[in-house]
Amino acid sequence: MTYFDEKLENIKILPKEDYPQKGPRPSKIREDLPALITELGIKDGDSLSFHHHLRNGDKVLVQVMKAVQSAGIKDITLVASSIFPSMGPIVELIEDGTITNIVTSYVSGPVGEAVSKGKLQGRIIMQSHGGRARAILSDEVPIDFAFIASPSCDVKGNISGVNGTNSCGAMGYAISDSIKGKTTIAVTDFLAGYPNYPADITEDYIDYVLKVDTIGEKAGIVSGTTMITKDPVGLKIAQDTLNSMIATGLVKDGLSFQTGAGGISLAVADYLRDYMIEKEIKGSFASGGITGYLVDMLEEGLFETLFDVQCFDLKAVDSLGYNKNHLRMSGSQYGNPEVSCVVDNLDIVILGATEIDTNFNVNVTTGAHGMLMGGSGGHQDTAFGSKVSIIVSKLFSSRIPFVKDRVDVITTPGNTVDILVTERGISINPLRTDLLEKFAEAKIDVID
Amino acid sequence: MTYFDEKLENIKILPKEDYPQKGPRPSKIREDLPALITELGIKDGDSLSFHHHLRNGDKVLVQVMKAVQSAGIKDITLVASSIFPSMGPIVELIEDGTITNIVTSYVSGPVGEAVSKGKLQGRIIMQSHGGRARAILSDEVPIDFAFIASPSCDVKGNISGVNGTNSCGAMGYAISDSIKGKTTIAVTDFLAGYPNYPADITEDYIDYVLKVDTIGEKAGIVSGTTMITKDPVGLKIAQDTLNSMIATGLVKDGLSFQTGAGGISLAVADYLRDYMIEKEIKGSFASGGITGYLVDMLEEGLFETLFDVQCFDLKAVDSLGYNKNHLRMSGSQYGNPEVSCVVDNLDIVILGATEIDTNFNVNVTTGAHGMLMGGSGGHQDTAFGSKVSIIVSKLFSSRIPFVKDRVDVITTPGNTVDILVTERGISINPLRTDLLEKFAEAKIDVID
Repeated sequence: MTYFDEKLENIKILPKEDYPQKGPRPSKIREDLPALITELGIKDGDSLSFHHHLRNGDKVLVQVMKAVQSAGIKDITLVASSIFPSMGPIVELIEDGTITNIVTSYVSGPVGEAVSKGKLQGRIIMQSHGGRARAILSDEVPIDFAFIASPSCDVKGNISGVNGTNSCGAMGYAISDSIKGKTTIAVTDFLAGYPNYPADITEDYIDYVLKVDTIGEKAGIVSGTTMITKDPVGLKIAQDTLNSMIATGLVKDGLSFQTGAGGISLAVADYLRDYMIEKEIKGSFASGGITGYLVDMLEEGLFETLFDVQCFDLKAVDSLGYNKNHLRMSGSQYGNPEVSCVVDNLDIVILGATEIDTNFNVNVTTGAHGMLMGGSGGHQDTAFGSKVSIIVSKLFSSRIPFVKDRVDVITTPGNTVDILVTERGISINPLRTDLLEKFAEAKIDVID
Repeated sequence: MTYFDEKLENIKILPKEDYPQKGPRPSKIREDLPALITELGIKDGDSLSFHHHLRNGDKVLVQVMKAVQSAGIKDITLVASSIFPSMGPIVELIEDGTITNIVTSYVSGPVGEAVSKGKLQGRIIMQSHGGRARAILSDEVPIDFAFIASPSCDVKGNISGVNGTNSCGAMGYAISDSIKGKTTIAVTDFLAGYPNYPADITEDYIDYVLKVDTIGEKAGIVSGTTMITKDPVGLKIAQDTLNSMIATGLVKDGLSFQTGAGGISLAVADYLRDYMIEKEIKGSFASGGITGYLVDMLEEGLFETLFDVQCFDLKAVDSLGYNKNHLRMSGSQYGNPEVSCVVDNLDIVILGATEIDTNFNVNVTTGAHGMLMGGSGGHQDTAFGSKVSIIVSKLFSSRIPFVKDRVDVITTPGNTVDILVTERGISINPLRTDLLEKFAEAKIDVID
């Protein structure tokens, strides 16, 4: 009887007079943002969260935070999964103390500059995408109010990223916020009929539905197309990368693969596609931010499934709407380091870098003069989880030297970075003696 | 700076020497149940949870609990979403104090008899399906170990109810357990390749995967077909029920509807189908436990979507596997009374009853001599949430009088029960003066 005596003392038993009465539930719909801020009782010191699936086209974060500023609320901790250049208007809120702390996975543009110049009164905590989900789900980063930009939402709060004028596709980074936000507000410019489906977030996780004129600007949300590099140097790097992948022995039936949307990364995917077709290789899954190139490979049967946390282009958004092998995943399912997650099952990930040092430590967080202009995103998560992580980059394309003795900021620790491919050739992390042997067998030149 | 000082004091920052090392993760696979029980450290007083999606074909609950008994562990609280006759072997565990408390939504067969005879040393708490999800998600019913019967599972814990030898379809009642179980164990007889999809529960929620010889017996899990009554009395009740539904004014475009798998309930669905086709009515959704009849109506375009918490027959399981308008829902999304949920959006629900009293209170929990032989399941949830709840039953089919002055047990309070249809005619709850008026307008005879 231990259980009931000690554990169930808090079980709720309503007295009969408190039984709820049958009848319509209160409406969740609100149409006046300032009035909602008053109704919610947002106060000094609260934490407000936002996701970045509308990327540089997002109109929700600035809209809400400016209303918070107008309400005279100070000392807000902004828990934003990423911060883009278009969110520059919040610099003013950093300067006047409306926002005093930031928790995020990526910052570029004016906000990064403002933080770098010391304008933030409190602290900034940078996390990976998986690390953010972990911290939120484990209650280490409490969220008082989650404002969830919603391409479509019905009156009860069923949110879908594939419907609506400003569809963004997968909404993986918003899931933890919807679960843990003490109060959750779907912000939408497209009220769908009930039930809105397929739902990325269902009504049981949403308290309010705020109707606004616009949540975003389509052109900034997703690219019409993402483009493969045409630069011969980039293409050589991509070819060497494919050769490296083959040398690892992992490019075979069951391959799992992730790559970004950069020009060289896409060229790697393109070369991989040709190779898989030629060798009749059927992969298991591709994951991450998803582009049309990976959708093509899914449809050609080169991968059985896609795990999609975020769509990078329109083709990915469309595919998510109709292809049942194109699977949604939450940020936690993607990369939460405290649970088993998709990155743990990755064979190979292709990643970029701003700078890398002789211990293979990678910086994608700061640029010239230590200016904050990026962040891990999924970099840490995938480098750690994958069997082989490959950094692809041109040595001489940015204003700062690419290879250094010591990077300014370690975004991704060198012990999780396995191969570097540049126009100078292929380097292998000396910790990976297994790879050094395989490359020797495959007679692939490796440079120190 | 309130936030960091007061709220983020617990944020985890690993010292560098504790950084996790890249490499394979520990295997989740176990193949020896007794060894796993030792490894898990299950101890006296713990709570173990199970779902009932394998219904009377379930071989997991008894298998696990007998191993717990063999390990000499006592005083277990059994948190089982429902308990069926095939689980009779646990009566012995109730008698010897292995199981001392039970939290469930439905009990029939030997366990109900044993509890009724006072054999349980502790207490039994009966909840609705939605109430169970609420209590678990709000930590009022803590779960130390969730054993999740899994028709298919991959080595990382992605569970799908539509794949595998013993597929059961939707797994809505297992979701809260997977989220809140302190330790979660997928129990499967079908190890699928990674990734197993579509996943009802993803790997980030699963700690162990236990491979067993069998999780169930197909014939007991789902019916090959569920059958419409052929009894003329039942058919008359069904016709009167349809007439009542029409009189409410709710049978029009956008209709949302739920009915069970009983013979009369299915006849109502069948009559409704004919009527909707004739009148060219397009409904919004049907919900609940889903049968092939509702799948037909989905495919005929009579409903836009199905919300499926549990599949009642093979046709529903198949449909869930291929029809993207056939949506899964969790027990919380279905009926959690503390959040907005699907039952809140129901126009009409058709329900059965064991007995009903003159205040429209319904008992579906106990039978003759107060013997425990049922429970709310979704009865309370849907009666409360729907605009109109209709009880359909023959007056003279059971061993006990159907209409009483006062029911033995109030499963569903009378203020949420709106209409009763029997072979004697249609009765309307006097609280629903609005319905009385509508029925008068429609010239439908109503009895007191």
